Amino acid sequence: MRVAVGQIEPHVSEYKRNLQIIRDVLSEAKDVEIDVLVLPELCNSGYVFESREEVEASAESIPEGQTSRELISWSRDGRFVVAGICERTKEGLHNSAAAFGDGKHFGTYRKIHLFLNERDWFLQGNEEPPVYEHNENRFGVMICFDWAFPEVARILALKQAQIILHPSNLVLPYCQDAMVTRSIENHIFTATANRTGTERGVTFSGSSQITDVNGKRLVRMGLSDSGIGWADVELKLADSKSITARNDSLRDRRPGLYTRLTQDD
Amino acid sequence: MRVAVGQIEPHVSEYKRNLQIIRDVLSEAKDVEIDVLVLPELCNSGYVFESREEVEASAESIPEGQTSRELISWSRDGRFVVAGICERTKEGLHNSAAAFGDGKHFGTYRKIHLFLNERDWFLQGNEEPPVYEHNENRFGVMICFDWAFPEVARILALKQAQIILHPSNLVLPYCQDAMVTRSIENHIFTATANRTGTERGVTFSGSSQITDVNGKRLVRMGLSDSGIGWADVELKLADSKSITARNDSLRDRRPGLYTRLTQDD
Repeated sequence: MRVAVGQIEPHVSEYKRNLQIIRDVLSEAKDVEIDVLVLPELCNSGYVFESREEVEASAESIPEGQTSRELISWSRDGRFVVAGICERTKEGLHNSAAAFGDGKHFGTYRKIHLFLNERDWFLQGNEEPPVYEHNENRFGVMICFDWAFPEVARILALKQAQIILHPSNLVLPYCQDAMVTRSIENHIFTATANRTGTERGVTFSGSSQITDVNGKRLVRMGLSDSGIGWADVELKLADSKSITARNDSLRDRRPGLYTRLTQDD
Repeated sequence: MRVAVGQIEPHVSEYKRNLQIIRDVLSEAKDVEIDVLVLPELCNSGYVFESREEVEASAESIPEGQTSRELISWSRDGRFVVAGICERTKEGLHNSAAAFGDGKHFGTYRKIHLFLNERDWFLQGNEEPPVYEHNENRFGVMICFDWAFPEVARILALKQAQIILHPSNLVLPYCQDAMVTRSIENHIFTATANRTGTERGVTFSGSSQITDVNGKRLVRMGLSDSGIGWADVELKLADSKSITARNDSLRDRRPGLYTRLTQDD
């Protein structure tokens, strides 16, 4: 199974240009025979908005929008893709990650931990992060700042995800190393697709990566590389949570002692 | 506030020798005016046991045992210390961390995630990891392999610990980097005191460290260094969980969406 992260530079308020950038990276991914692809957060819209109108102008419905249609088309013939989408719903706007496989819409995750000014534009999601089953593989999804909440990766592991597909627009330097820890503590693969470039003074940190179940980086792109980074992975390695002959990342947990984690302050 | 990790090499089944090693490192800590000290896991007993008799012979009651008495004595005049103790209780043996301050026993944490053959000798603890308040500082305690369960550090942060005091006997190479992630995701200090040496073919990884609330390593000892590593820290920095002007490590959590974390399989 060939897994890839697509590292691109979207441009805020340039919806058509972004669509072409997405088409180009999808084409590159097809050329190198990628089975599973992750694209960055908000790749149809850019990130550093100045007004609600600007967000609205780039937002689209899933799966009716143009970006969705491109992704659906790419996902035919057994492929799977998760991309960050600036989404319009009846209720409002969401920072979402849409999943497509075999030419179909598998589902949409709406980010539950919003970062900084995302609160000005987006409604927060109110559902547990999802795991999608596709051709006997299980894909968990989280978005960018969700990395800072170890609860999210843990939930995905408990839902039997084998790999976390992680669209991102990272600015702080901490996430990539933290995802190594997420891999180790959950014995899970991760694929973080980050964007590049500087938008209205905000510089994104690239360095998209794929980690294996022991936290080894299989791929690490540069700060400003563009295109596809990929690795051939055996996702079934994540089905065993064995750390030692007598330890298991999940079975050794003590959920009865963790009740504080679900209490409201 | 001067915080220290004591990196030492206990010897299995040599209780008296270990007591002298502990006395020596306590003396060194006093010389450099340490306020808060962490010593490794099972520092009175060594680690790689071959029989129950061997564990029994090094186990002691807390706070009546000789190691406790040394630690109580050291903790007078406003000091605080947490050390890993092979503990004998009425119910059986525990891999414990005992906390002493101002010449008094503050409490004992009994490890809730046992590693490998620890299950052969020790009962698992059945209580949430503790936070102790001492002179307006708040010390959380966990032991070694607890690092692999992000739930533990999170619980300590939710209980308002400012620093995690972390006695360890680490053999795998993952923990020290993971503790950087623990600091960042909880905006908390950590002090991991690891042992050194090789016991019956098992080599411990030293590299005791202290991290700040942003995951910066303030101290990192070598693989086989002996003695005290220390840093002057302002623990109040951990009282704010602010990551950005609009984000907070704890308040941004979504406990209502984390219920899976407390469910038994």
